[in-house]
Amino acid sequence: MATIDANPPAGTRDHLPVDVERRERAFDTIRRVFRSHGFSPLETPAFERLEVLTGKYGDEGDQLIFKILRRGEHEATGVADLALRYDLTVPLARVVARYGSQLPNPFRRYQIAPVWRADRPGRGRFREFHQCDLDTVGSSSLTADATTIIAVADALEALGLHGFRVQVNHREALRGLIEAYGVPAEFEADTLVALDKLAKIGVDGVATELRDRGIPPPAAEAITADLTDDDALRARVESTSRGATGTSEVDRLVQLVGDVVGGTVEYAPVLARGLSYYTGPVFEVVHDDLDVTIAAGGRYDGLVGMFQSTDVPATGGSLGLERILLLLEDRETEEHREVDVVVTVVDEALTDRAVALAGRVRRTGLRVDLYSGEGRLGKQLKYADRRGAAVALILGDQEIDTGTVTIKHLATGDQIAVATDDLDERVVGLCVDTTKDDR
Amino acid sequence: MATIDANPPAGTRDHLPVDVERRERAFDTIRRVFRSHGFSPLETPAFERLEVLTGKYGDEGDQLIFKILRRGEHEATGVADLALRYDLTVPLARVVARYGSQLPNPFRRYQIAPVWRADRPGRGRFREFHQCDLDTVGSSSLTADATTIIAVADALEALGLHGFRVQVNHREALRGLIEAYGVPAEFEADTLVALDKLAKIGVDGVATELRDRGIPPPAAEAITADLTDDDALRARVESTSRGATGTSEVDRLVQLVGDVVGGTVEYAPVLARGLSYYTGPVFEVVHDDLDVTIAAGGRYDGLVGMFQSTDVPATGGSLGLERILLLLEDRETEEHREVDVVVTVVDEALTDRAVALAGRVRRTGLRVDLYSGEGRLGKQLKYADRRGAAVALILGDQEIDTGTVTIKHLATGDQIAVATDDLDERVVGLCVDTTKDDR
Repeated sequence: MATIDANPPAGTRDHLPVDVERRERAFDTIRRVFRSHGFSPLETPAFERLEVLTGKYGDEGDQLIFKILRRGEHEATGVADLALRYDLTVPLARVVARYGSQLPNPFRRYQIAPVWRADRPGRGRFREFHQCDLDTVGSSSLTADATTIIAVADALEALGLHGFRVQVNHREALRGLIEAYGVPAEFEADTLVALDKLAKIGVDGVATELRDRGIPPPAAEAITADLTDDDALRARVESTSRGATGTSEVDRLVQLVGDVVGGTVEYAPVLARGLSYYTGPVFEVVHDDLDVTIAAGGRYDGLVGMFQSTDVPATGGSLGLERILLLLEDRETEEHREVDVVVTVVDEALTDRAVALAGRVRRTGLRVDLYSGEGRLGKQLKYADRRGAAVALILGDQEIDTGTVTIKHLATGDQIAVATDDLDERVVGLCVDTTKDDR
Repeated sequence: MATIDANPPAGTRDHLPVDVERRERAFDTIRRVFRSHGFSPLETPAFERLEVLTGKYGDEGDQLIFKILRRGEHEATGVADLALRYDLTVPLARVVARYGSQLPNPFRRYQIAPVWRADRPGRGRFREFHQCDLDTVGSSSLTADATTIIAVADALEALGLHGFRVQVNHREALRGLIEAYGVPAEFEADTLVALDKLAKIGVDGVATELRDRGIPPPAAEAITADLTDDDALRARVESTSRGATGTSEVDRLVQLVGDVVGGTVEYAPVLARGLSYYTGPVFEVVHDDLDVTIAAGGRYDGLVGMFQSTDVPATGGSLGLERILLLLEDRETEEHREVDVVVTVVDEALTDRAVALAGRVRRTGLRVDLYSGEGRLGKQLKYADRRGAAVALILGDQEIDTGTVTIKHLATGDQIAVATDDLDERVVGLCVDTTKDDR
């Protein structure tokens, strides 16, 4: 028994208190913002029937699904009938098929929940991680696309991630681009995948990639020549009819959200996301300083209807939650306070008084921990320090005799005996004083 | 594709918005109370390595573990290497073994999280359900046991579940009872299982069960005779030395928590919980009116050390969360409000103004939904009603011309045109007025 490996399974994490509290603060902020935009929470089971998930994520995705063995007498068959959810979109599609008429139409929902993928674990890549999705189902209106972007941007602002760029493109504008530069239809996907890497690999990199992917040289060279010239790209895109349709929706969208959103919002002619997935506007939010994508989304009218006989228009977005949490963690310089007050127990015979004291101070709204270990006062004060408490309260015979409680301010080491009547006020004062808004 | 079953897997539930919000409100309340007592949140992965879980829950429990198939080339072996967590205690034991010295000592943690059991689904019995545990690890002090009970009782009060009884017993008092009534050691477990059912099956039921389980008649009859006489039971228990040790700890515990806890706290001589598990005080919280157990716990010094070479003292409790949520649901008579305000869009050309209006009102802190469907005004007002909004805002040419916005109060149907400058105040007034504190 003693030899068992006590680590969490590969690619998963235990979140100790400091970590959970940081994550929950971020989740609470996001929830508040999403709800302020009229999105409601949805929760679905951790696992789905296997057939609900298979065939939805391509061959590569299917390989990464965690499958659950049948139970009881069927366990020995080695056959799976359930699987852990791989994303939050397929469960949403199932919910819409199941409860359609019970839901408001349009249906705005958000879900912040773990998903599981049997990916090779690596730095910043986990097998259990949280996704954070918001979607509007049942609306073809550009207002719904605008709402996604505004809500996402508001959430990022509320998290303190100021300084970002919202880049917008459109499936039809991308089709127009392909057509305008004379890329043969069979090379559309390869071309867009290469173009989408511009920010990462630069113009020369894209040129190489276009060549390696076998894009006919005349088309590849024409595109490469315009690659850093958005006006030239736009002119070409708009020379086609579907391209013009695309850019006019982009313009309208930029106009709708531009004044409301904190960061810049701009047309990004080579932004291409999940080609088989998106059907209309697409967007990406890039953090200015770090040049990383922290949110993305778009319209995907073909997907939510997958469990029904009809198409269901849908548009939404996703915060890159794990990446955002890492950014927030890097910025955090505050001490961590798990509790505000530790009530020490220096005399077993006075435990009743200590319990009552803790209950009393707790009514002020502070987090009050009654020491329950076996250590003497020095050890108890160390414990209080370890938990980041602002003060420790000491109640001994002397205090009882004089109707006082001794307050020890842990940062300075100062001790004062305070009359019981003044206690709450003094303790709150010391705790608020040193609280850095991290409760 | 269209024929796929859109229900969630057997024994699991989709939680639609009303339901999620009700659950989250309860979770938030519980978290706040647990934190106010110095407990910190812990999160562990949904699955564990299989060997961490097997052999911990008895043969019956082992049958109910959801096992996860190996992946990739190993999938065809039909062998499992991971399993969904079955409770929150074994993961806690693993965490204590893994991070021991990094944790405060004693370590107070709570965890509110789903667990999975392949039980036969039934009314109120789910394969995915939330557990809500709080524990103090590393303390042998009765103060820790007292803290559990006080925190649990405070949480129940905060949830509005007033009127409950805390029943307390002790492993040693139970041993004393067995000894005092002359029950042979090999019948200890059977006897206690039968006695524990007193509240459910009455004295005659217990007598029958003792007989059926083969308890020697003299002992069975002596116990049955005293069964409703707590004083007689106590006197017998205290006639043994371990029984006296047990009741003296019970008395001290009742004394420590009695004044602090809202409900009654009392010694319950035949209360017996998880015999192989608990080692000291045990408690159960029973709801007075409904006569159901809504929380329980106790000291279990033998368990948390299972992955280490040493014993680790631990004591804690668990709220019967799913049962409590059902109780709260039954009580809820309030209308459900998903959003406060719906901003209608009556004229496509005024969408920009509607977006700005929604953003403006949202800054008051209200939840403001910008209608994104394709319906005309009547349909938009129905949507607002369906979402439980207090008011709908209408912005047409007439309003633009006069610098007003029309507020429609959905409960009464009243409409008033309000000057833009006074809008926020009027909208907040109408929303707060009809808000029933369900945000």
